[in-house]
Amino acid sequence: MIIPPGFASFSEYSDQFLRNVAVDNVIFGYHEKELKVLLQQPYTLEKWTVTGGYIKKTESIEDAASRIAFDRTGIKGLYLKQFGSFGNPQRVIDDGFTPQRIGKITGFELPADSWIFDYFVSVAFYTLTEFSKVESTKGELEADSRWWPVNELPPMMFDHAHIINEALSALRLHIAHFPIGYELLPEKFTLPEIHSLYETILGKSLDDRNFTKKLLLTKIITKLDETRKIGRHRSPFLYKFDKEHYQEGLKSGVALVF
Amino acid sequence: MIIPPGFASFSEYSDQFLRNVAVDNVIFGYHEKELKVLLQQPYTLEKWTVTGGYIKKTESIEDAASRIAFDRTGIKGLYLKQFGSFGNPQRVIDDGFTPQRIGKITGFELPADSWIFDYFVSVAFYTLTEFSKVESTKGELEADSRWWPVNELPPMMFDHAHIINEALSALRLHIAHFPIGYELLPEKFTLPEIHSLYETILGKSLDDRNFTKKLLLTKIITKLDETRKIGRHRSPFLYKFDKEHYQEGLKSGVALVF
Repeated sequence: MIIPPGFASFSEYSDQFLRNVAVDNVIFGYHEKELKVLLQQPYTLEKWTVTGGYIKKTESIEDAASRIAFDRTGIKGLYLKQFGSFGNPQRVIDDGFTPQRIGKITGFELPADSWIFDYFVSVAFYTLTEFSKVESTKGELEADSRWWPVNELPPMMFDHAHIINEALSALRLHIAHFPIGYELLPEKFTLPEIHSLYETILGKSLDDRNFTKKLLLTKIITKLDETRKIGRHRSPFLYKFDKEHYQEGLKSGVALVF
Repeated sequence: MIIPPGFASFSEYSDQFLRNVAVDNVIFGYHEKELKVLLQQPYTLEKWTVTGGYIKKTESIEDAASRIAFDRTGIKGLYLKQFGSFGNPQRVIDDGFTPQRIGKITGFELPADSWIFDYFVSVAFYTLTEFSKVESTKGELEADSRWWPVNELPPMMFDHAHIINEALSALRLHIAHFPIGYELLPEKFTLPEIHSLYETILGKSLDDRNFTKKLLLTKIITKLDETRKIGRHRSPFLYKFDKEHYQEGLKSGVALVF
């Protein structure tokens, strides 16, 4: 726990939070065939972390996740899905998280037996957004904040690379059972565009015809009587989401196992 | 946190645990068409709780869950599946969890601003076992420990009724995608027996023929050349699990959405 400016002591700041438990948000961003994840680099570390923060005693874990996600992305109402909690004693070792180092940066001297140096359980959420819409804002405590391609991660703190992998598995399981795309594609899109969205998130190629057939069976998209010229001889039809079936799918699920 | 006998002070006992985060295990038991859940009643409360406990600083959350499950059931190696974490400020209100009450029972006077009275995030796991195999052992801190039918729960502490519901949803989702039954049915069983197992866990009736068809398609059970006489004119064939397909199904999943 790093103390932001304006607090007189460690306990004045830390007393508002639960101890030994925190929230991590894995914020995925999709944009034109790229899947990225928002990472930050605290001043205290050379390694990177997913976005996260502490839980106020007065808020639920879900409220903490929303507050922290809003802080980092400026987007309100991001759909955050809890996918697991992570906790083991190795979470504090070898990542420069020492009383000395923290004291140097914050100006507060913490006792070496403070609970802050016991491991923290991380309650982890993920979300998926359109990353060109997000201005990632680096907090006062971060040296850097940036979108990274999910398959080219920088050195990560603790088990954060593992947390991202688990979030990705949860996201992939999710899109096999629920519709996605509403906020990730333009209002009118081509079949190749939605095909690329699924391929990018799943990280594998999907047979064209089979994909289209399954997708149309779910009725979440509708063909428009309209084409888009994308090349001299190519003018594919446009599609849009069918609001009713999409909403119904969000509730009851759709069969899209690939 | 209730202090067991043999400790000289609150902090001597509590210093071995993480603060404000704990583990809860929802232990389901199946036996002859009944689905039950193991609950305990602490001395400090009139209400009941799922089985749970605190996390040692030296162990992972998974190790804590296993240790606590073994304490309560005497079974080693129970398969515990994490299905969610629960935390909100309402978790401490109105359940008799006061400094006075705890002091009276434990003999320790705790300061009212102790972290023990801030809310705890619960990392929750579930498991499913054969309840006739389990001797539920009541700890020194519990007034009672008992199997309850999942649809006839006693008054529950905090959000524990909600946690049981969420565990049940997770279990139902799980059996739609992975095989179960290996430790819940006799080695050789009839189709009505495995049919009842699924109906009991899903809490709804399943069309006989449709169920059998889907189950046989998964190849996780094999028909034996053997019958069991269960009535004057009824000698249904016996089945057993096919070890190879069952194991494969545990890894890759099976399609059993009902």
